[in-house]
Amino acid sequence: MKDYIERHNSLILPSTISSSEDKVIVKTKGVWIWDHEGKKYFDASSQVSMVNIGHSHPKLIRWMRKFLFHVGKGQKAGEVIATDGYYHNELFVDGQTMELTPASLIERLAPHTFGKNKIMGFFNVGGTLAVDDDIRYFITTTKKPHWIAFEKGFHGRHGESRDSSSANPIHWNETDRNSHVFFLPFPETKADLDKGLEMLNSIPLDKCACFIYEPVQGEGGGMRVGWHLKKMEEVLKKEGLFSISDEIQAGLGRCGEWFAYQRLGLSPDGIVLGKSLGTILPVSGFVFKKELFDKKFPKGKISGTYPGYALGMAAANFVLRIYEEEKIVGNVQNLEKDLSIFLSEATIGKNMKGMGKPSLSVDGLGFMRSIKTFDEFDKPDINYRDFLNLRLREQGIWTYPASISFPAIRITPPLVSTLSELDHLYQGLKKAL
Amino acid sequence: MKDYIERHNSLILPSTISSSEDKVIVKTKGVWIWDHEGKKYFDASSQVSMVNIGHSHPKLIRWMRKFLFHVGKGQKAGEVIATDGYYHNELFVDGQTMELTPASLIERLAPHTFGKNKIMGFFNVGGTLAVDDDIRYFITTTKKPHWIAFEKGFHGRHGESRDSSSANPIHWNETDRNSHVFFLPFPETKADLDKGLEMLNSIPLDKCACFIYEPVQGEGGGMRVGWHLKKMEEVLKKEGLFSISDEIQAGLGRCGEWFAYQRLGLSPDGIVLGKSLGTILPVSGFVFKKELFDKKFPKGKISGTYPGYALGMAAANFVLRIYEEEKIVGNVQNLEKDLSIFLSEATIGKNMKGMGKPSLSVDGLGFMRSIKTFDEFDKPDINYRDFLNLRLREQGIWTYPASISFPAIRITPPLVSTLSELDHLYQGLKKAL
Repeated sequence: MKDYIERHNSLILPSTISSSEDKVIVKTKGVWIWDHEGKKYFDASSQVSMVNIGHSHPKLIRWMRKFLFHVGKGQKAGEVIATDGYYHNELFVDGQTMELTPASLIERLAPHTFGKNKIMGFFNVGGTLAVDDDIRYFITTTKKPHWIAFEKGFHGRHGESRDSSSANPIHWNETDRNSHVFFLPFPETKADLDKGLEMLNSIPLDKCACFIYEPVQGEGGGMRVGWHLKKMEEVLKKEGLFSISDEIQAGLGRCGEWFAYQRLGLSPDGIVLGKSLGTILPVSGFVFKKELFDKKFPKGKISGTYPGYALGMAAANFVLRIYEEEKIVGNVQNLEKDLSIFLSEATIGKNMKGMGKPSLSVDGLGFMRSIKTFDEFDKPDINYRDFLNLRLREQGIWTYPASISFPAIRITPPLVSTLSELDHLYQGLKKAL
Repeated sequence: MKDYIERHNSLILPSTISSSEDKVIVKTKGVWIWDHEGKKYFDASSQVSMVNIGHSHPKLIRWMRKFLFHVGKGQKAGEVIATDGYYHNELFVDGQTMELTPASLIERLAPHTFGKNKIMGFFNVGGTLAVDDDIRYFITTTKKPHWIAFEKGFHGRHGESRDSSSANPIHWNETDRNSHVFFLPFPETKADLDKGLEMLNSIPLDKCACFIYEPVQGEGGGMRVGWHLKKMEEVLKKEGLFSISDEIQAGLGRCGEWFAYQRLGLSPDGIVLGKSLGTILPVSGFVFKKELFDKKFPKGKISGTYPGYALGMAAANFVLRIYEEEKIVGNVQNLEKDLSIFLSEATIGKNMKGMGKPSLSVDGLGFMRSIKTFDEFDKPDINYRDFLNLRLREQGIWTYPASISFPAIRITPPLVSTLSELDHLYQGLKKAL
């Protein structure tokens, strides 16, 4: 399998950190993954919150297989229908007839967000595309060209494709090209908030359509919590801006509520979803308050090849049923204190051999946690982070590093983890440190 | 099902043309789809070239079910592994052990593109993201900020997510923000080419990293063929720009060769793939000449949640095996003349009752064709297009309109269509006109 890594690297461009990996995953099940040498790991990453319900969830796989069986016989609306068309699928599984459409997915999300008859949305593939759809919706309907985001935020990394398209109505026209995004400090502390509030004086708020935040910053912020976002949201909403909560990582139970904005008492107008929504397949979406629907919103402003594709919608509908049947969010609420205690006890005052006198701090909320690494002068230490990541692997704990700005090990275990599985994480951490 | 359309429209934002549809698809199989009233249609759209191998291809569905069976038992590397990790899967199906990885997918593409040991690439979900990855690769490695595209071109519609991200190294930094895309006339005619060549004088070519074209324009150009692209490519490559062929719609056999650039004698340095590559799942990719790989290309410039996800890679590997086993490209070569004759005979000199004296013209290449609609004054006529689309539906022919610039009905049948199925399309066209 070392050959495989070499072969992969000779054929595939490097991604975020792939070229520093030396393990090949060959099996996954529940909270566990196995490498090519047969070593077993607790997946404390959930693969960046993609498998909140665990790997290869038996119901999800069984239901998908049943759905594919009927698709294969030509008894269901195909795997793929262009977004331009309507389709309808139902499937009887485990005592229940389930509708498997974009509409039913919105309805399944309703009770956990804005409520029945109070929600609309649009699905896509990949969170980055749902972020685009959401911002574009508010920019288009308000006719205000600008928007606001937060420093160290991460909402995706795409853009050149639009710029290359000259065809109407997709063309990024002159008004759009003059769009600007303003960055405010992420209001983790009161000082961040105050600085941000002051900066608002130099931003043309009357020309800003919306603002987008992660309630807990993932990729860029290493699980910093927006403790003072609520105040910032109040101020910006009073100025007429719409509020978007990017829940791609923090949502779907990860922070101990269905959505992280609920945990922080925020009031977004729209929510961006992704990752575990489809779990085994790429499904993203944005949902927003139905009262904000503008009937004049032009066709073609948001679209794509795979939005609402049948297999993706089947998977996401199944995932949400599993969330409900297995009380996934409740499990986080039951165990988040245990996880907090484990992380504190394992890290406080800990030092590591051969690393000077570095220190650790625990950040985050619910099951969206991080261990941040500082050197002996209290400066963020990326080498220490990578060293710790390696030590955890040796102890059978699979994690991924995050964030160049705030070097951190992400601790984001599957939301279905049991207390004894979290204890396994704790023991591994203790040994690694 | 009329209820379903209303319900869908009350829950889901309008896409490109969805709100003008009045049929709900409930079954699909091979080249056929069925609506909610039991009416059967020949799918002359291939759902915008997503199901080149036909809907619910029996091998593809069977192999996917088998793969899911092993995933469910925890015997395979999971459905989802973050891009940061390596995984490896193999599956024995129909007498052959298949590797199901990103690496094996590159190797399967090699003989049809740049050749063994001469190709590298990166996979993503959705063509729009692959376009981004490709342009970003050339901009980053050449350190030239600009690029060139063509009028009426369509390469995707995303961008706001990147602009919202402040986290390094994703941040769209100042150099990037000064990027500019220059549009040239699409060289369909010699006059377009000459105009474009003249325009080059006012473009800072030494600061342009690359140029991207569709060999046959889809969405925006309504299947216009770049008959004079070859000359433009020669000139731009001499100036040091890299050449990218966007084969999302035109590639994978649609134009009678594995890739449309081959049909037009073009020499791209990179190719963008999408749509039928995953067929039932969103899989896109860009592959490029290995000699252009820059070892200094920084990690994190291209990445994402689902690039190279296991189910997508399984599907795409299966699809390419089906292409080979069933000689899909050969079928297009065998039948493209018949399709041409059918389209000409059905449209030439045809008039439609109640539509004044409109005229039709046939465009495109291979199985990527269109019927363009003009009014009695030879002006593009969008109402005529929509009327024709409706008449085709009545005759059991499923098509989608395309292009506001050049109103057209797309005629893009599945590449597995038989002569008698194409004859069904012909008969339907004749009756509709």
